[in-house]
Amino acid sequence: MPTMWSNTLIPTSRQDPSDAEVPSHKLMIRAGILRRLGSGSYDYLPLGVRSLHKAMNIVRHEMDAIGAAEVFLPSLQPIELWEKTGRREAYGDNLFVVKDRHGREQALGPTHEEVITELASAYLTSYKDLPKTLYQIQTKFRDEFRPRFGILRSREFQMKDSYSFHITMDGEGGLNEAYDKHYQAYCRIFESCGLPYMPVEAEAGPIGGNASHEFMAPSPTGEDIILKSDKGNYAANVEKAEIGTREANFTAEPTATLETINTPNCPGIAEVVSLLGITDADMLKTLVFEASVKSEEDLEAEQQYEAQYTPAPREFVPDRFFVIAVVRGDHEVNEAKLLQAVKQQINPKIEAVALIEEHEAQRQEFAIGYVGPQRAVNAPLTRLIVDYDAAQPNTNPSGWVTGANQKDHHVKHFDWQRDVVSQLNKERAPIAADIRNARTGDPSPKNDGGVLEETRGIELGHIFKLGTKYSQALGATVLDDKNKHIPMLMGCYGVGVNRILAAAIECNQGHDENGIIWPAAIAPYKIVITPIKYAGEAAEAANKLANDLEAQGIDVLIDDRKERPGVKFKDADLIGIPVRIVVGDKGLANGEIEIKLRNGTNGPKGENIKLDTAIETIAKKLKSL
Amino acid sequence: MPTMWSNTLIPTSRQDPSDAEVPSHKLMIRAGILRRLGSGSYDYLPLGVRSLHKAMNIVRHEMDAIGAAEVFLPSLQPIELWEKTGRREAYGDNLFVVKDRHGREQALGPTHEEVITELASAYLTSYKDLPKTLYQIQTKFRDEFRPRFGILRSREFQMKDSYSFHITMDGEGGLNEAYDKHYQAYCRIFESCGLPYMPVEAEAGPIGGNASHEFMAPSPTGEDIILKSDKGNYAANVEKAEIGTREANFTAEPTATLETINTPNCPGIAEVVSLLGITDADMLKTLVFEASVKSEEDLEAEQQYEAQYTPAPREFVPDRFFVIAVVRGDHEVNEAKLLQAVKQQINPKIEAVALIEEHEAQRQEFAIGYVGPQRAVNAPLTRLIVDYDAAQPNTNPSGWVTGANQKDHHVKHFDWQRDVVSQLNKERAPIAADIRNARTGDPSPKNDGGVLEETRGIELGHIFKLGTKYSQALGATVLDDKNKHIPMLMGCYGVGVNRILAAAIECNQGHDENGIIWPAAIAPYKIVITPIKYAGEAAEAANKLANDLEAQGIDVLIDDRKERPGVKFKDADLIGIPVRIVVGDKGLANGEIEIKLRNGTNGPKGENIKLDTAIETIAKKLKSL
Repeated sequence: MPTMWSNTLIPTSRQDPSDAEVPSHKLMIRAGILRRLGSGSYDYLPLGVRSLHKAMNIVRHEMDAIGAAEVFLPSLQPIELWEKTGRREAYGDNLFVVKDRHGREQALGPTHEEVITELASAYLTSYKDLPKTLYQIQTKFRDEFRPRFGILRSREFQMKDSYSFHITMDGEGGLNEAYDKHYQAYCRIFESCGLPYMPVEAEAGPIGGNASHEFMAPSPTGEDIILKSDKGNYAANVEKAEIGTREANFTAEPTATLETINTPNCPGIAEVVSLLGITDADMLKTLVFEASVKSEEDLEAEQQYEAQYTPAPREFVPDRFFVIAVVRGDHEVNEAKLLQAVKQQINPKIEAVALIEEHEAQRQEFAIGYVGPQRAVNAPLTRLIVDYDAAQPNTNPSGWVTGANQKDHHVKHFDWQRDVVSQLNKERAPIAADIRNARTGDPSPKNDGGVLEETRGIELGHIFKLGTKYSQALGATVLDDKNKHIPMLMGCYGVGVNRILAAAIECNQGHDENGIIWPAAIAPYKIVITPIKYAGEAAEAANKLANDLEAQGIDVLIDDRKERPGVKFKDADLIGIPVRIVVGDKGLANGEIEIKLRNGTNGPKGENIKLDTAIETIAKKLKSL
Repeated sequence: MPTMWSNTLIPTSRQDPSDAEVPSHKLMIRAGILRRLGSGSYDYLPLGVRSLHKAMNIVRHEMDAIGAAEVFLPSLQPIELWEKTGRREAYGDNLFVVKDRHGREQALGPTHEEVITELASAYLTSYKDLPKTLYQIQTKFRDEFRPRFGILRSREFQMKDSYSFHITMDGEGGLNEAYDKHYQAYCRIFESCGLPYMPVEAEAGPIGGNASHEFMAPSPTGEDIILKSDKGNYAANVEKAEIGTREANFTAEPTATLETINTPNCPGIAEVVSLLGITDADMLKTLVFEASVKSEEDLEAEQQYEAQYTPAPREFVPDRFFVIAVVRGDHEVNEAKLLQAVKQQINPKIEAVALIEEHEAQRQEFAIGYVGPQRAVNAPLTRLIVDYDAAQPNTNPSGWVTGANQKDHHVKHFDWQRDVVSQLNKERAPIAADIRNARTGDPSPKNDGGVLEETRGIELGHIFKLGTKYSQALGATVLDDKNKHIPMLMGCYGVGVNRILAAAIECNQGHDENGIIWPAAIAPYKIVITPIKYAGEAAEAANKLANDLEAQGIDVLIDDRKERPGVKFKDADLIGIPVRIVVGDKGLANGEIEIKLRNGTNGPKGENIKLDTAIETIAKKLKSL
């Protein structure tokens, strides 16, 4: 049954909403797809629901095809489960917690690892029950600090989340197999939705685990930065992106005598660079972190506590110490890489690195803004980790410029060998490592001559190998073939279904100055029929055509409003229906109607087609989209 | 694609769960449809999700057919909206309230009148925009005091809720038309789901408004009591059910002298009846209520407050007074009817009646447990309302027995005329009214000789005429054809989608001693194929048959487990798939398979059918279900 415009609710508007920053947000409001109810909270209006359901059905189809079974788990989750896995703390304020009438706390699920693991622990008891993949499509909740970009970062959102359970990593039925199946299924999902996308390597993040990919829709407004090799064989989120092989060189000859210079009120790179007339790349940026075997949240809590109580200075203990991290002035420290380096080269038990707190910096006499690598000398409670590009000689006129470890002073002609290496015991020698964000121009980690390039994207999906993080915390074990209890290996896999909609609009081909251009697969309707005037013969022809199309499974919106044709054409463009059919008395007199493709591929004016073969012509055009 | 049993998750069990009281709850757990996560909180496992989706699709189809447009509204709702309509208070502890990170409170939606009215107020601005009907299918939240009966009374549940907007009550596009359309659509929904159901008249309840019907699935375990006329032309919830015309008779001659008797420790009907050797019907049950122009919640709050502060006694004021309600000892007071009587006969502004609090009873010297109608005499702050069946003479040996208005004493031979009517001013004369629950044997309100009969039901749906309650509170007005702002008339309409599943099992034909018997329309699968042994030729035949059936749109589960046939048959019965096909080598040798209908209509053993015409035979059988 075709939908009548006047019967449904499509409140279009010519005005951009004042709080919208990105095209998809603006256009979804203007096209009457969304209405803002509160901060990060949106009503999906009828056009939005239709697109959402189409995207969900594509997701469901592909999940079923890889043998995943659909479940539906509660949003209210016992907080005890979140405490057992440590995620209550890890999520912090992002987790909505609600007290019931009996005073018991419940988490309002942002994700379901705990609940599904509880379920799996009850029903999956033997290796014979594995592998198993379960999924759901559902509203998730997240108390965003600053919801924005419409449904790209909202407090309630639609996720497909799946979870797989295994006894082995490799081989048939192993975690790697399920991971690969999801990888392929996700490619098919985004392809079927008509979205440009790219899989990129990713950090696992607070969800835990040790391998992951993200699926990104390229978009200039995306929140994620991606590094791609120009050879086309590597792409990764900046949090994860590696850099081709580099070599440290701490042993070059000094360029000149170390010279302390007065740099009043110049705590930042920019100020010093401007004062001395050098470039960012001539400076060594030196940051102080605390490393701890505790989680980041625990460490931060401890730091807060000690703001009041701990006496300074303190001893080096391998469980908690200071890391002096050095990168070139034009580079950015990557905390995940830094943590990785600390784990690999100092203590594998370290769980977190966090920037030093101000009070602690004062106690330990770190002159924040003016710290230099020399600070590690005679400071047994510190370790020095230097990015490869900083662990080089600098033969420019000023040599390396870096902090002088006293307020308002820097040094010129800093030399690694003379000023640091020669002054440290061997076991405290500076460690060279990749600890910075990759950026445009860096060599590809494939070491094949490829060069990395920065681009931006919207995260549509994310797949993780969780390992045994959750199964261990919640005691989800199975008996293996030797009758031994072992924790299950798990994978988890998410798709942001509402983000599919936003990304489809946000990408370059998803909109123009007139409005949305939906990919046919997730357009609210495939066809909009716009009678010049919805009356008499034109109305009859419109209805008949619509019914015939619907009978072929092609969904149709008829614009039956008493509006001028110009208004109706503008609205049809704004809401972005792929095919517009204009029915007018004049054309009908010649047995003709007009067809115009929203993406412009049959010209700005469209073309006339014969009414009596319209169904076939339209179906053919649709296939071409 | 058919589903393999070993690939999905169907954790069947032979044990009834310890906390389950009703068949649907027991069987949904035992059949692996649900798993309990916490109090009133259930994981839907794959079989449950499939049935849920089938029910949702039936609901969606019928809503679309009456021209309703689907929306999807947030679960987190600004609490301010709930305060504006007074429903925060009305819902009380049943409403989950969650604070976000900025300390702002949000209601976790149990229903969406406020949010949809906010939406309507923004987009529906002229009578030309009306009528409009919007609906959604969604998780709702309700902080039940005592969740029970599995998904029949849970804290999260799936609702279809729709809302209609109008400018007139009658005529084309009026509220009554939308109400009738929903009524018809609901009948089609429950019929399509294969459920026995009955529409009954209902009280509007705390949701407000002034006309409503419930749709009930008859079930001996249902929480609702329904009165039906044996003429088949009347059915109503006991809260609403009226009784055929009765007449009061306050003026009969006294049966004997009023006699006070000692009834120590006999505050209840049962004790007095047993002491005196009379029947319940010989007693006048006398209860004291407070009536107030405030809402019930406000009144209760005021009562609590006054427990500490108000001096006694107090004066009669028409805004707040005491109602002495009298019904026969074998009858129950119906508070909704009592309120109605108070509004109609004393003060139309009265909003609530609530049983008197103990402290207030003491102050006002009501001897609770021993109050009798005579208490109204010389008590100007009271009004006396008497049910018709109590407003009669009693010629039995003891006459009317009722409280003597002093502890441990009752009276015999109470007489309305002598003991009350003659002692009261005309304006304080006892009011006769229908203030009791109807019960089996009462005359039908149709006054056609029909007799009411009690039965029990599960509420599946509820339709209301809300009037302007919400549009007035939230300023949702439209311009009428005279350019005047008027509040929209609204209707609201709900279906408990998960209750459809539970009710289908709960009703008599929905289960037997072996498990569930699903109606075909909402069964998780239409067919289960059970190979005697899933191997060789039998496995091939099973797969081929399954694929052929799926190609016809008939969904199939193949029991590919390495279990004994007996276990597989028992599980097939337990999960209640309508058609079971057994494939075995022996039958295949004769070109035959076995078909057995779960509802037993082709015998306890089923029948053999030819494999080469199996698809047609099965399709035909399915149609017969």
